[in-house]
Amino acid sequence: MSSTQTQPTRTRQWLLVNKPTGLPVLSGEDQTFKLQTVSLPSPLEQNQLLLKLVYLSNDPAQRGWISPRINPDRSYLPPVQLDTPMHARGLAEVLDSTSSQPGFRKGDFVLASMGWSEYAVLNVSACQPAPELPGGLSRTHYLGALGLTGLTAYYGIKEIGETKSSEVVVVSGAAGATGGMAVQVAKKIVGAKLVVGIAGGEEKCRYVEQKLGADKCVDYKKEGWKKDLAEATSAARGGNEKGFVDVYFDNVGGQMLDYMLSRMAMHGRVVACGAISQYNSSEGTMLKNYSEVVTMRIQIRGMIVLDYIHKIAEVMGIFKQAIQQGKLNVSGESEYVVEAKFEEVPKVWMTLFEGANTGKLVTKIM
Amino acid sequence: MSSTQTQPTRTRQWLLVNKPTGLPVLSGEDQTFKLQTVSLPSPLEQNQLLLKLVYLSNDPAQRGWISPRINPDRSYLPPVQLDTPMHARGLAEVLDSTSSQPGFRKGDFVLASMGWSEYAVLNVSACQPAPELPGGLSRTHYLGALGLTGLTAYYGIKEIGETKSSEVVVVSGAAGATGGMAVQVAKKIVGAKLVVGIAGGEEKCRYVEQKLGADKCVDYKKEGWKKDLAEATSAARGGNEKGFVDVYFDNVGGQMLDYMLSRMAMHGRVVACGAISQYNSSEGTMLKNYSEVVTMRIQIRGMIVLDYIHKIAEVMGIFKQAIQQGKLNVSGESEYVVEAKFEEVPKVWMTLFEGANTGKLVTKIM
Repeated sequence: MSSTQTQPTRTRQWLLVNKPTGLPVLSGEDQTFKLQTVSLPSPLEQNQLLLKLVYLSNDPAQRGWISPRINPDRSYLPPVQLDTPMHARGLAEVLDSTSSQPGFRKGDFVLASMGWSEYAVLNVSACQPAPELPGGLSRTHYLGALGLTGLTAYYGIKEIGETKSSEVVVVSGAAGATGGMAVQVAKKIVGAKLVVGIAGGEEKCRYVEQKLGADKCVDYKKEGWKKDLAEATSAARGGNEKGFVDVYFDNVGGQMLDYMLSRMAMHGRVVACGAISQYNSSEGTMLKNYSEVVTMRIQIRGMIVLDYIHKIAEVMGIFKQAIQQGKLNVSGESEYVVEAKFEEVPKVWMTLFEGANTGKLVTKIM
Repeated sequence: MSSTQTQPTRTRQWLLVNKPTGLPVLSGEDQTFKLQTVSLPSPLEQNQLLLKLVYLSNDPAQRGWISPRINPDRSYLPPVQLDTPMHARGLAEVLDSTSSQPGFRKGDFVLASMGWSEYAVLNVSACQPAPELPGGLSRTHYLGALGLTGLTAYYGIKEIGETKSSEVVVVSGAAGATGGMAVQVAKKIVGAKLVVGIAGGEEKCRYVEQKLGADKCVDYKKEGWKKDLAEATSAARGGNEKGFVDVYFDNVGGQMLDYMLSRMAMHGRVVACGAISQYNSSEGTMLKNYSEVVTMRIQIRGMIVLDYIHKIAEVMGIFKQAIQQGKLNVSGESEYVVEAKFEEVPKVWMTLFEGANTGKLVTKIM
């Protein structure tokens, strides 16, 4: 099976060469990443795969893995070491294989944490099969709605948020990959009474309302957005209670988290999923409304999707059924696929922090 | 029954006249409180009591009730209105009564929110009987260990903290009223593996270790206290895990909360009971370690004891049994009774913020 005649023997990869304290830097003396070319191990050992990266997952969480402030003892995944390839999940084609297991043969697609490497040699045990999806869905969904992103949204809303159908849910980063799924899980799977998204820009808000089914999406770049949010959420409660938001799914952190503390209902729950507003800052999170955590008995609970990975088959079953029933929308705009050369991988990733994408940002390697 | 011949017809009371943004002010133009004398309603209506304040409860939470920043719609109790008497709980003697219910007759003691008033007329329904305690215990314990303070500690450790016997617990303000009871509940009722207190000063620490039974108490006024805390908590875990503290009972907030976020074990729980370090500040809470809430899946959960008030009889039953068995220590130092004239009520209350007291600060009105 192992024939390497026309196969690559070398690969380009993006190394981490400087741990950024602020926004990562694409070029110049302080550049965060550097391109290098290395040899691939050859020949393949038993149960190994030679992989070609086809689709790359771009995730805000990757910023945490390269922070100089991360204490390796307190990290949920090992941080990226200097002068080693940047970590990332991707969807790769098997170019060569010494495995006879179905799903791991030449021409198959697999999911793997192969990092920012054009090619890689990995053991079968480090890869998962990524067979074609039914209903004409693109395989890229394995990186988003039908992968860890979807699982994050599901457990965040259902388990960490303990969302009930009688409740009011607010999701920040609602046009993003995880937020968009959180909106849909809250509205279409839990059937929450009111689901309000927060996103940046009119177009994104329209997408969250029209394509994802939020009852309302508030544009935080527009003046008066706090009033809009207050109105949208208090209306569902007759406008006469002490607080209005039962579950806040937080992808953003920082000032938005602080504001939301002042809007939570008594015994409300904050799902602390991410804090993209803080990833490129070293200032810390200023919570002027922290006292409301006590007075309103608010719960803030952090989550990492890896804790629920053993549930992925079960949850994807639920999602696939919901897609078939037309309840869950993962078509078109739930992905933001950018075709790019391998040289442009860091540049595309960086657009996450500009809020460029609607839905999951995936790089298709040209 | 209602004879008023030798009874007071007027009372002094301390009014709130300025809502302080920083530390309350005892005198001068900006003074927070003002003494006045008013007439008492007379004669008593049916089922009313004429009360004389004997013991006054001093609580950090009272600071919140007079903050100008408190939104009445977001407060767990109505804030104190300007030019009305300061709110407070107290233990009062019944001087006169129009009730025939046992526990509410002349000479009985009752618990009541009678505020900073020397005398008051209240309906029976606003008072609870405070019969003599067995075993020679002072009635003042109704204001502390055998009252809301004890209930707070119990529900904080057991319900909000979900503390298990295999776990490591840290309590800040450990020499204070609530903290001291939290230490004892964790160690003696739950039987937690390791209970570490944090307190200010050597004497307090000795009290927490020797009288309350903490495995260790760390003096945060001493240089190197963070190292002491880290060592004390990591030893219980073999020193080789990602984090060491399963439950942090927080009475302090601010920088100590922030530091503790960096010490929590994975899936650790912060019981957000109070934030005394922040009550006299308008700066907000800066959490440099907020990201650890996500990465370490930490839960921060606010609590207000009023949610558990229906459980008080049950919990006091547990406490009384534990006292009889010699497990729970509520003698002597668990109270800090200050004899003072009524004119000195605000001054005594203010010593809470200097950390003067060990155990529950009670004012005995001379």
